[in-house]
Amino acid sequence: MITKEEIASQYQEIQNEICAGLEQLDGKASFTEELWQREGGGGGKTRVILNGDVLEKGGVNFSAVEGQLPETIKNALKVEQHDFFATGVSIVIHPNHPMVPIIHMNIRYFEMPSTNNKSPMRWFGGGIDLTPHYVIDDDAQFFHRKLKAVCDDFNHEFYHRFKVWADDYFFIKHRHETRGIGGIFYDRLAATDEYSWDDIFEFSKALGRSFLPIYSELVNRNRDKEYTEAQQEWQYQRRSRYAEFNLVYDAGTKFGLETNGRIESILMSLPPQARWLYNYQAQPGSEEERTLTLLKKGINWI
Amino acid sequence: MITKEEIASQYQEIQNEICAGLEQLDGKASFTEELWQREGGGGGKTRVILNGDVLEKGGVNFSAVEGQLPETIKNALKVEQHDFFATGVSIVIHPNHPMVPIIHMNIRYFEMPSTNNKSPMRWFGGGIDLTPHYVIDDDAQFFHRKLKAVCDDFNHEFYHRFKVWADDYFFIKHRHETRGIGGIFYDRLAATDEYSWDDIFEFSKALGRSFLPIYSELVNRNRDKEYTEAQQEWQYQRRSRYAEFNLVYDAGTKFGLETNGRIESILMSLPPQARWLYNYQAQPGSEEERTLTLLKKGINWI
Repeated sequence: MITKEEIASQYQEIQNEICAGLEQLDGKASFTEELWQREGGGGGKTRVILNGDVLEKGGVNFSAVEGQLPETIKNALKVEQHDFFATGVSIVIHPNHPMVPIIHMNIRYFEMPSTNNKSPMRWFGGGIDLTPHYVIDDDAQFFHRKLKAVCDDFNHEFYHRFKVWADDYFFIKHRHETRGIGGIFYDRLAATDEYSWDDIFEFSKALGRSFLPIYSELVNRNRDKEYTEAQQEWQYQRRSRYAEFNLVYDAGTKFGLETNGRIESILMSLPPQARWLYNYQAQPGSEEERTLTLLKKGINWI
Repeated sequence: MITKEEIASQYQEIQNEICAGLEQLDGKASFTEELWQREGGGGGKTRVILNGDVLEKGGVNFSAVEGQLPETIKNALKVEQHDFFATGVSIVIHPNHPMVPIIHMNIRYFEMPSTNNKSPMRWFGGGIDLTPHYVIDDDAQFFHRKLKAVCDDFNHEFYHRFKVWADDYFFIKHRHETRGIGGIFYDRLAATDEYSWDDIFEFSKALGRSFLPIYSELVNRNRDKEYTEAQQEWQYQRRSRYAEFNLVYDAGTKFGLETNGRIESILMSLPPQARWLYNYQAQPGSEEERTLTLLKKGINWI
């Protein structure tokens, strides 16, 4: 069975590939790296790209942390065990262009070693989801088709299950709107009769490796479009909703804050700039209004 | 004994006084009002001032809501009772000028009627706290002295108790920094042998009425100072910390989101614009660095 060291090592390779590819895609900026260590155990490599030709603020984080689970998380997981190990690659990119979408990708592995003769708990999680400032139907279809193809290679139920999961997860409850057009999200995926640990790990890597071609296509389709100042303002407003989701609901952010992770790495997902306008109402018939009507669960984008 | 209707009515009067005073202070913008009703019972008057001469985004909310406590809050309060009534005035002001501080004021009353022969639960809460983008020692001293004077009129222990409480409450745990220079904060204040319900209510109103002269002085001391673009950028960075506190920790915001309050009224506290720079480090010896070193608990500002 695959070891946690091997998982962490292959995740790092994926981080390397993605950073190299994103630099090429941007053509102007390059990543800077911070290595950090966590007081309780483990650490990570945070790579950030800033003020690029199209990538305004992007982070590609790798981390492998271990130690004692904090009280709050033990309670949430309903476990008495203390030790944990978690590794993953996590990406958020805020482009400078309102027609280029925000994207988020995460692949992760979590385990708690066995104690008191109980078997260890382990699972994989992850997903990719897209947050367009303006929903572009062709792009949405392309995005979901690509994710479906990645899923279908492993299991014909994955896409549907994980698409519904993303709709539910990336939901800004207090706004009654989804963060974007969803994608796929899964958590606590463990081996079954149908698929082995190796299969799940292969799926995790395939998802990680699908990120670069998918986002490159979406960037290149839109980066040369002209846009107005009003559209840029709208982009900053949408970014504020992204900040709301991440600070109020996102489980990864909460986990990071509660396990005393490196704060700048956890919050690199927050937008470079955001606007909160009081009581904004989109103009009837506008593209902004259209986008708002599409921020809901259950849309079949394919 | 004072009734909840009377409390709500006098709180509305304070809202009126403050809005009139803030319009005069600003000299350019005026408030617009939205009346709203809550599905579960009650409603409020949200008043917002935008793009003024100095008040860039300010909200002065009155609300009086009632109905059934949501599950989560019942659990937090460890009560089985369902009905509640809550009224209050809540203010947040974001000025356009980096030398003028952000301010927050809240006065509130909460009650749950008696059921099963148990006596009703009721209490007052509130406070005023200041978030300067740049800490100015004279202003900080003035601010805390004024609050101490309001407290001392009622009880000589209030200022110290409530100042410590504010330090603890307005703390951004994941940044290891306070939101600003604190002020006073109190919750669940109920009658004792030392002070009656009437005393507490008088204190609540006195605190509410201290807001306008205090903030007017702080605005007028600083509004005509010149500032640079870099100082404005710093202001936007500080605003991002304000957003983090309100979305991650603020109990009033959580209560509003969980009791299905009017979302634009609850989140009017968020800044008109905010910036998240990755891994910002203040220049050694700069005013920005000095401010950061002063964002901690336990400073005696007087």
